Amino acid sequence: MGGSTFGRIFRLTSFGESHSKAIGGVIDGCPAGIKVDYDLINKELLRRMPGQSAITTQRKETDEVEFLSGIFDGKTLGTPIGFIILNHDFIPGDYENIKRLFRPSHADYSYYLKYGIRDYRGGGRSSARETASRIVAGSFARMVLHQTGLQIIAYVSQVGNLMLNKNYEELDLSNIDKSICRCPDAETSEKMQLLIEKLKSEGNSTGGVVSCVIRNTPAGMGEPVFDKLHAEMAKAMLSINGAKGFEYGSGFRCASMTGSEHNDIFYSEDDIVKTRTNHSGGIQGGISNGADIYFNVAFKPVSTIYQKQSTIDEQMNPVEYTPKGRHDTCIAPRAVPIVEAMAAMVLADFYLIAKTNRIRD
Amino acid sequence: MGGSTFGRIFRLTSFGESHSKAIGGVIDGCPAGIKVDYDLINKELLRRMPGQSAITTQRKETDEVEFLSGIFDGKTLGTPIGFIILNHDFIPGDYENIKRLFRPSHADYSYYLKYGIRDYRGGGRSSARETASRIVAGSFARMVLHQTGLQIIAYVSQVGNLMLNKNYEELDLSNIDKSICRCPDAETSEKMQLLIEKLKSEGNSTGGVVSCVIRNTPAGMGEPVFDKLHAEMAKAMLSINGAKGFEYGSGFRCASMTGSEHNDIFYSEDDIVKTRTNHSGGIQGGISNGADIYFNVAFKPVSTIYQKQSTIDEQMNPVEYTPKGRHDTCIAPRAVPIVEAMAAMVLADFYLIAKTNRIRD
Amino acid sequence: MGGSTFGRIFRLTSFGESHSKAIGGVIDGCPAGIKVDYDLINKELLRRMPGQSAITTQRKETDEVEFLSGIFDGKTLGTPIGFIILNHDFIPGDYENIKRLFRPSHADYSYYLKYGIRDYRGGGRSSARETASRIVAGSFARMVLHQTGLQIIAYVSQVGNLMLNKNYEELDLSNIDKSICRCPDAETSEKMQLLIEKLKSEGNSTGGVVSCVIRNTPAGMGEPVFDKLHAEMAKAMLSINGAKGFEYGSGFRCASMTGSEHNDIFYSEDDIVKTRTNHSGGIQGGISNGADIYFNVAFKPVSTIYQKQSTIDEQMNPVEYTPKGRHDTCIAPRAVPIVEAMAAMVLADFYLIAKTNRIRD
Amino acid sequence: MGGSTFGRIFRLTSFGESHSKAIGGVIDGCPAGIKVDYDLINKELLRRMPGQSAITTQRKETDEVEFLSGIFDGKTLGTPIGFIILNHDFIPGDYENIKRLFRPSHADYSYYLKYGIRDYRGGGRSSARETASRIVAGSFARMVLHQTGLQIIAYVSQVGNLMLNKNYEELDLSNIDKSICRCPDAETSEKMQLLIEKLKSEGNSTGGVVSCVIRNTPAGMGEPVFDKLHAEMAKAMLSINGAKGFEYGSGFRCASMTGSEHNDIFYSEDDIVKTRTNHSGGIQGGISNGADIYFNVAFKPVSTIYQKQSTIDEQMNPVEYTPKGRHDTCIAPRAVPIVEAMAAMVLADFYLIAKTNRIRD
Repeated sequence: MGGSTFGRIFRLTSFGESHSKAIGGVIDGCPAGIKVDYDLINKELLRRMPGQSAITTQRKETDEVEFLSGIFDGKTLGTPIGFIILNHDFIPGDYENIKRLFRPSHADYSYYLKYGIRDYRGGGRSSARETASRIVAGSFARMVLHQTGLQIIAYVSQVGNLMLNKNYEELDLSNIDKSICRCPDAETSEKMQLLIEKLKSEGNSTGGVVSCVIRNTPAGMGEPVFDKLHAEMAKAMLSINGAKGFEYGSGFRCASMTGSEHNDIFYSEDDIVKTRTNHSGGIQGGISNGADIYFNVAFKPVSTIYQKQSTIDEQMNPVEYTPKGRHDTCIAPRAVPIVEAMAAMVLADFYLIAKTNRIRD
Repeated sequence: MGGSTFGRIFRLTSFGESHSKAIGGVIDGCPAGIKVDYDLINKELLRRMPGQSAITTQRKETDEVEFLSGIFDGKTLGTPIGFIILNHDFIPGDYENIKRLFRPSHADYSYYLKYGIRDYRGGGRSSARETASRIVAGSFARMVLHQTGLQIIAYVSQVGNLMLNKNYEELDLSNIDKSICRCPDAETSEKMQLLIEKLKSEGNSTGGVVSCVIRNTPAGMGEPVFDKLHAEMAKAMLSINGAKGFEYGSGFRCASMTGSEHNDIFYSEDDIVKTRTNHSGGIQGGISNGADIYFNVAFKPVSTIYQKQSTIDEQMNPVEYTPKGRHDTCIAPRAVPIVEAMAAMVLADFYLIAKTNRIRD
Repeated sequence: MGGSTFGRIFRLTSFGESHSKAIGGVIDGCPAGIKVDYDLINKELLRRMPGQSAITTQRKETDEVEFLSGIFDGKTLGTPIGFIILNHDFIPGDYENIKRLFRPSHADYSYYLKYGIRDYRGGGRSSARETASRIVAGSFARMVLHQTGLQIIAYVSQVGNLMLNKNYEELDLSNIDKSICRCPDAETSEKMQLLIEKLKSEGNSTGGVVSCVIRNTPAGMGEPVFDKLHAEMAKAMLSINGAKGFEYGSGFRCASMTGSEHNDIFYSEDDIVKTRTNHSGGIQGGISNGADIYFNVAFKPVSTIYQKQSTIDEQMNPVEYTPKGRHDTCIAPRAVPIVEAMAAMVLADFYLIAKTNRIRD
Repeated sequence: MGGSTFGRIFRLTSFGESHSKAIGGVIDGCPAGIKVDYDLINKELLRRMPGQSAITTQRKETDEVEFLSGIFDGKTLGTPIGFIILNHDFIPGDYENIKRLFRPSHADYSYYLKYGIRDYRGGGRSSARETASRIVAGSFARMVLHQTGLQIIAYVSQVGNLMLNKNYEELDLSNIDKSICRCPDAETSEKMQLLIEKLKSEGNSTGGVVSCVIRNTPAGMGEPVFDKLHAEMAKAMLSINGAKGFEYGSGFRCASMTGSEHNDIFYSEDDIVKTRTNHSGGIQGGISNGADIYFNVAFKPVSTIYQKQSTIDEQMNPVEYTPKGRHDTCIAPRAVPIVEAMAAMVLADFYLIAKTNRIRD
């Protein structure tokens, strides 16, 4: 089993520890004949890459993806696309001090309980390093969806207690990558940056929220009952390192609303079915209705902070621990392309599944 | 594909529309030799059943489950457990008025777009009627987990803007089923009931939040990367009708916390590893660490309200619509056993998967 | 896990022991909008039914299928099709004598080792009774494939040492159901019937072979490497009770052929690609090429024979055993519709999967 | 979907075309803490490798496997084991002459129909090159099974019309790898070698049969109904390139046997349950009973023969074609380790699944 495969038709199987020779994956079920957009892949990998700005970790991951199979003459063959990204930047000895201890709020302890063995270097399999493979697969998912016109746009809507109090319709989403915090509102972005820099200087970290909107969604994606579109989306998002919550459409706010406020009234305009509001977040009964899909994902503060903390070792002895290494202060800005990649994978999968829902022609 | 199977080892495949002859399911992968606790099953079905109190719908679903296979001499055989629950309470003609229209915020329109055909009676497959099958499977999941001592307890923590501002450790959880709102705090419960009755009298509805805590969790449940315990839990919870959000541990609050606040410090006491806080919600790196798991699920206000609403029909003509039938005003109290059932299914599945993680002779 | 689900997109999950209340299944992933051909279902169930002729078991299984969900106004909804077939014909006490012993070449012993518990009545889950569910699902699979013009035709080609030494192209396949042995060659059929009657009178049984041909197969069905069309077909056929071997195209004969004899030479005629021979059996590299698919399945002699046999009981004591009950002498004639049903399920699944191989529009 | 994943718990996802940069795979679900036996892996890869003897192709595939993840301190981590094998031996231009034509009895045509694009170099994904990944995964499967004492031994039992007329119990199986034909009977092996050399000199090829026996099998492996042990084994074997038939136990011979001949009579000796015969091939009702499992797999003559053949190109024009390159004359000897590897994967998977069949202490 193992947990490293995502999707049913369009499927990524990923592998790799933080400090193994390489990370990588196999994308199977990608339709044949798609022109591979290498620029897209590299652009998305760059957006995820550490060291891209003053506020992200200065750890260098070159993140050059090498494709090993499944592509011919620049097009997908329909066969598995194998790819690797080498792990370079490893200083031996860096991890001697954490070899036998359990870092607070990391996966060290739970992996140890589960497997009786763990790769303590950089978090091993639990490291966010593996998200680079998601970016690669997410890029192919976007290529699958390309002809539908579907757009997936994520941005940072909260850092610490700084919240962007506008919804996606009030924002100029073309600004997102202009801000190193990936917040489309310049004023809020600036404050976020200051907060992150302040916490960084204190050796602390902060949580955040990433919001995502999907436009031009084809209707009919998602399956009834257990594989509802938002249920798979929730799984996809909560599988990202550090994610603690997911809400779509009206989200947790729905709890304090009444039905008369919350119901989205259908009407038609120019022969198109529309709704007056979109608290449903583009999904009804687990199936997309063509309206915008939007959701939020909460990310916890990065667990590696540059302060002395007490913990225990494998023999349950108390020890003190101050991390070395280079980590982000707030993961949200770099989570933006990962949220988009996972959303793309969910949607490409349902898009292909939907081709089997009816016998047409 | 179809979306009606949940789980990998312990699996429920469910079927049934609101007004088909029966709903039911097949539980495959349930270990052999488990004594079937029929009282548990019936108790849980009763807790979900409509018409159980003044505030729930007066629609009568007898919800008597009939087991067809997989049980012999009162024990599970290891073979599939087939079961059905007959659909009785159907008044022909009840649905004539909604046959060709799309009810606001229901699944009518999205199913129609997806399949080109739909069973308009009572929501068809999108009806919450199918959750009775989850209750049955969840009861078997509890039997699988029984020997571990694991406990799953859910309760209502919000109705409308009435929030229970205590966490699970401050509450007497033995009170839950004494309250018809399933809120363990008597004072809040009473207010919730009044609010629900008021909205009911207005033909309106309200959202709510269900909280859940899992105690005595075995460590090592959950898989790395995509099948993290909380990711599967999120999927499970968001697959429940009307769910709009999921958060575990510190949840969305984590966004405004710093790492030094949020990190759970390990220490040992009486040769047991503990953490000073439990913002991790018992899950680190997607794998249970033995501490309490807790999470919240937001439910939207019930879409069927007894007020005149405008909508459109299949020909996009505007129509007016006032529902008949009997529906809950707030789904949260009856969602409590469903949340527990889905949690049990996720955990039983991971519990069995964990048996394959190591070779222990 | 449990083993009771077949297929990826078009999926049957079956349940039921020989003497449980009912057997049945859930078909999920069947496309929406298909007119249900009840006559086909009933005809196929009748072809499988025991007691249909002088040479089959006189045990009566009424095999009336009751559909519980997934169908509306005579059409598939796209949602799971739940169905049951009640188990009637059970004489209590019939199985007292085999309760604690292991019948030779039955599944009694291996089930006991695996599960520590077994339903000894009529073979429990290992009974061929469950194949009725395959017939139901296979009928829906045929409906899915209907518009392609694909035809699946199976027949008995060997009973004991009586072999039909003609291939499918030399036979009049419209004769199959005219023969109670389901052998399309009248002369051979008559001999087969005599052999079966002779063995029956001796309380003995015999093996046989079922051959199957599939015409008008769409090209492109089957997936590379592990999920080759013939690999799935082999699994499907060997999952039928009593099956011991599978070969397709040239089959085991290929071992003594040379490449120059075996290669199927391509040519074109009237703008259609053809092959001079079809040793490939319509499948190359695991993927259908549009030519006829044909294969053979070997069935062992029925294990229940009406002769005294020695065996052991659960305490390993030697015991003697003479079966009661009513069983076929040769399973091949009644296996014919089951072979067809399983072939239909494999093909419908790959037909739907193939819709996701390329992005067309 | 894509077809490149095998197994449920212990799973290989493989990738790679014959002439892509590399082939490789990801093994997920391998239990943690297993000491990696690199010697075993290399020995098995060597046994599969082309160019290993006078009768196999002189094409050089170095087949050096590089592990990228999932192993730490020489042990499995429980996380995915990613590995690659580089593709070296590629002479550009070698495939210009076959670029647009469909080689007889190859997958060129069916892939082209399915995907509309194909990698024509060396058969692309349909090349037997990918079986090296099966060898790697099969070696890990053997490590999983190691403590059970289970042994998997395959050998060549037929080449052309030369058949080894002894069953596995009459043979000295320690001789297998002493013969370059991998036939344990010296006399037959010599004849086989002469036949292969003769056909090779004629530019022709021949089919063959590989037999396999599995000893010390734990009881209880295999699942009821669809996932019977022999059904999965059949799928596994028929997924190997060139396989045309599978039979286990009495196999196709069962068709001409009577029940009284075929039934395996149980008795006990020294408190061990045994059977007088083993026509069941160690599997009853789809589940292993602890007796030896044995089966045969038929392989077709290699399709690439060094004779001029006529065929057509993509425009359906007739063309003549004489292959270049280096191919085996008979695939059976090199198929031996692949048959073993696939058997190991099936068994490791069921071994792990069986851990979830019962709740024990």
